Amino acid sequence: MHNKSPKKNWRVKLHEIIYEADTPEGKLFDVILLFAIIASIVFVMLESIKEFDVRYHNFLDIAEWVITIIFSIEYILRIIAVKKPFKYIFSFYGIVDFLSTIPKYISLIFVGTQVFIALRALRLLRVFRILKLARYLGASNMLANSLKASRAKIAVFLFAVFIVSIIFGTLMYLVEGEASGFTSIPVSVYWCIVTLTTVGFGDITPVTPLGQFIASFIMILGYGIIAVPTGIVSAEYVSQNRDKVSNPPSPTAVDLNTEACPNCSVERHKDGAKYCYSCGHLLREYE
Amino acid sequence: MHNKSPKKNWRVKLHEIIYEADTPEGKLFDVILLFAIIASIVFVMLESIKEFDVRYHNFLDIAEWVITIIFSIEYILRIIAVKKPFKYIFSFYGIVDFLSTIPKYISLIFVGTQVFIALRALRLLRVFRILKLARYLGASNMLANSLKASRAKIAVFLFAVFIVSIIFGTLMYLVEGEASGFTSIPVSVYWCIVTLTTVGFGDITPVTPLGQFIASFIMILGYGIIAVPTGIVSAEYVSQNRDKVSNPPSPTAVDLNTEACPNCSVERHKDGAKYCYSCGHLLREYE
Amino acid sequence: MHNKSPKKNWRVKLHEIIYEADTPEGKLFDVILLFAIIASIVFVMLESIKEFDVRYHNFLDIAEWVITIIFSIEYILRIIAVKKPFKYIFSFYGIVDFLSTIPKYISLIFVGTQVFIALRALRLLRVFRILKLARYLGASNMLANSLKASRAKIAVFLFAVFIVSIIFGTLMYLVEGEASGFTSIPVSVYWCIVTLTTVGFGDITPVTPLGQFIASFIMILGYGIIAVPTGIVSAEYVSQNRDKVSNPPSPTAVDLNTEACPNCSVERHKDGAKYCYSCGHLLREYE
Amino acid sequence: MHNKSPKKNWRVKLHEIIYEADTPEGKLFDVILLFAIIASIVFVMLESIKEFDVRYHNFLDIAEWVITIIFSIEYILRIIAVKKPFKYIFSFYGIVDFLSTIPKYISLIFVGTQVFIALRALRLLRVFRILKLARYLGASNMLANSLKASRAKIAVFLFAVFIVSIIFGTLMYLVEGEASGFTSIPVSVYWCIVTLTTVGFGDITPVTPLGQFIASFIMILGYGIIAVPTGIVSAEYVSQNRDKVSNPPSPTAVDLNTEACPNCSVERHKDGAKYCYSCGHLLREYE
Repeated sequence: MHNKSPKKNWRVKLHEIIYEADTPEGKLFDVILLFAIIASIVFVMLESIKEFDVRYHNFLDIAEWVITIIFSIEYILRIIAVKKPFKYIFSFYGIVDFLSTIPKYISLIFVGTQVFIALRALRLLRVFRILKLARYLGASNMLANSLKASRAKIAVFLFAVFIVSIIFGTLMYLVEGEASGFTSIPVSVYWCIVTLTTVGFGDITPVTPLGQFIASFIMILGYGIIAVPTGIVSAEYVSQNRDKVSNPPSPTAVDLNTEACPNCSVERHKDGAKYCYSCGHLLREYE
Repeated sequence: MHNKSPKKNWRVKLHEIIYEADTPEGKLFDVILLFAIIASIVFVMLESIKEFDVRYHNFLDIAEWVITIIFSIEYILRIIAVKKPFKYIFSFYGIVDFLSTIPKYISLIFVGTQVFIALRALRLLRVFRILKLARYLGASNMLANSLKASRAKIAVFLFAVFIVSIIFGTLMYLVEGEASGFTSIPVSVYWCIVTLTTVGFGDITPVTPLGQFIASFIMILGYGIIAVPTGIVSAEYVSQNRDKVSNPPSPTAVDLNTEACPNCSVERHKDGAKYCYSCGHLLREYE
Repeated sequence: MHNKSPKKNWRVKLHEIIYEADTPEGKLFDVILLFAIIASIVFVMLESIKEFDVRYHNFLDIAEWVITIIFSIEYILRIIAVKKPFKYIFSFYGIVDFLSTIPKYISLIFVGTQVFIALRALRLLRVFRILKLARYLGASNMLANSLKASRAKIAVFLFAVFIVSIIFGTLMYLVEGEASGFTSIPVSVYWCIVTLTTVGFGDITPVTPLGQFIASFIMILGYGIIAVPTGIVSAEYVSQNRDKVSNPPSPTAVDLNTEACPNCSVERHKDGAKYCYSCGHLLREYE
Repeated sequence: MHNKSPKKNWRVKLHEIIYEADTPEGKLFDVILLFAIIASIVFVMLESIKEFDVRYHNFLDIAEWVITIIFSIEYILRIIAVKKPFKYIFSFYGIVDFLSTIPKYISLIFVGTQVFIALRALRLLRVFRILKLARYLGASNMLANSLKASRAKIAVFLFAVFIVSIIFGTLMYLVEGEASGFTSIPVSVYWCIVTLTTVGFGDITPVTPLGQFIASFIMILGYGIIAVPTGIVSAEYVSQNRDKVSNPPSPTAVDLNTEACPNCSVERHKDGAKYCYSCGHLLREYE
């Protein structure tokens, strides 16, 4: 532990700054990154508004190039700082980071691709890491668990919505015809989904008495169907709340740690952990 | 058990392939069937889009005839493979299979009836059998049980929606009159259902101050009413979840079996069952 | 019990037929009444459709007069059959029965009042009596109890919706101005309720960037607010379901009885009851 | 306690009338105030309707000045009656009271600011104090507790809605283009929020098949997302209901008291309390 090479030391330090949010430097890095992400999304949005684009085109273009270069450097540093770079590259965040950087370069060749920069919104998910809010991590875990536990039920429910939409969509196409905007079965199915989900744009509406009668039936059905996913999720939450009362909340405390393994990038180590629970690598080599 | 006639053997084999999904042949049959159903729905949809129909009319027509003939053969085989064919013919799936096949033949005589092929969407319900996903069967059973247990409450609720719609629909017809689109009481009742269910197409909207005031009231009422079915279903799920915790999940395991009785087509036999629980017939004669 | 006057006997019999649904005659009377109510609602609806009214005006007019006279006779018989007629006249059903009969007579003097016949829809509530479905009575009791128990919470919630609508309605009026349809504060408040309840007609929509931003905020707020009444009702149902499990379902059984006291018209007597629990009068004098 | 100065006595009396609702004078004061608030909101609303403003401009202007002067006097009296006026001035109600009074004065200099009088709607929150309805206070506490307990989950949920809206909004902008009304990414994100929340105005709607397909996906997603906040709140209510059953309802009884400390204006003292629980000042000096 005492005779570390200077290069290793530098890499470990880099890993700490980029991947973790426990040290002041790591926190600063994350906050700067967060602002860069938000700025980049705002610039893409402003660029899409014609009046802005006409006036400030050059400024917006330069600002985006600056941010893209910052992101490119960050991406390369992330690859360097990790011992197993491919594990990072093909991880969820690795792919998001890549997709957030590349569109601006491609826009040099193909016009219009820079709008994909909106994918950078996904990078905002890092915000939870930065804020170190275990509560939010716990809450999002609970959300994810509820959805996972209800997966089968939700699949059955979506399948039912799908079949109902096809059958009633076709029926409405037959009843209403093209005069009211039900120009084809796919459009009718689209209208049926719009109605079942109670969105109701009103771009296509039934005008015949029979069509309005069937539409009323679909709406009341949708009204009833909306109860199903809500009921499923509610029941899951209730049973999760009940479990949490009987068990101590210690497992959530584990999630507090924002450390990432310098070898395999796995996160969520126990607070006092010395070695990575996944690859067995030493977590803080320089200590 | 040893001296079975060859014919019986052939029929038993056919039953196994068509009705069950436990053997490789049975699984293959079901998967092919699934693709045929999806293809047939897609073809009907494409046919309803004018641009497609003009260009590929002949191709779509031939493709549908091919699928219709496949379904016809399948339907006849299903009748042959079962010992009590009438039980199959008048079962839910039997009727759906018949209604999925017949429209194309009728379209030879009456133009336009082939759109009823969309009823084939109901055949997609077989997908659960094919996927052998007991979890999904369990989930759909739970959904069905919740709805069954809440039947009376939902009926009372729908009845309330019905009466409220008639009374407020008439009121809006009186207040708004024909200028705003409330041309008759049935149209007003339709508008009232559109509003109560929070769909809100916007094809008909109140324009007088009093009409807008009553509409506001109806909306807040609908907002409150939407809570009722959701609350009913949630409570059912919560109590079902609670029951499942106290009882072992063994009854669900029974549903795993996709076997169907060769005599009476009843499904959901226990895993080790030798005889049909409904008619007492031997389940696998050839063993 | 043996020397009853013939007149009393006749009145008792009449009470049994009109107010109860336990005897064949009583059931027949209620079913005929139900059809008369539905027919009368249908006639009023058809009359409001111009094409129908032009063609079948005379038929519809005569049909309604026939039904009105039937209802008038029934109303008078109900008053005669009961010992304390004022108790019936000022009961909920008594008022509904009166309001269902009178509009047609008034329409002789004032044109247009016959549309109030739609109030007859309220008479459909009698359907539960006719169907003798205790389950439905139990379910509607449970619904009513949930709403009663959540009364204070729902009032607080509606009050919050009210204040939010006024403040954001005014804000949108300031931001959007008259060009986008936000012509006055009341109209803006109406729009705000339409948006908060997720109805979204689309007759008035924000067009300025700031207006759309505030509208987005209102929608997400409405999305959150919709959770409140649902959560309240769900929690009530869950706790009622829990209570029902611990207590025997005997109190519901009491509701099965459709008998009404011949003296004071009170309903829901115990099945074996001889005397009215409210006024002490003998329930079945002729036995 | 016996030799109080007359001035002190006068101030204590004033405090009792203005801040409390236990004495007849205090109740009368609060009821008059409530009517003044409602009247002032109604006047601002009427003023925004052109037809009214043209006809009754002078009447409305005078009426609002009268109410504004009443509110100004009340505001000054409130400051005088309290011992620590700054504590009141910077409390929630203090700021609301100030903001309700000032716009009319500013409207003398800047035209149009009097519409901010709508902020007076917030003063309606005092209605709970006036009605002395502990039940409602308990219910609103329960509402607030549920929301507080679910805070982290709701933040995660809103964050998810935010990211989904940006990504799908950009996608729809790319797919639909300006012809269908998706003129810029911010407008597309706005449309996405309108759709996700199932409001569905219909001012902007997809017209291309791909756009309608993505819209269908967004709607079903929104349908699923709506289940999340509802489930969260339902589960909170269920667990709060459960707690209330095990604990006696005595803590709610504390909220019954509408007394306010004459020194620091803190409310919700215990019923028998002699000294303020916050600053230790004697609650009723004149007794």
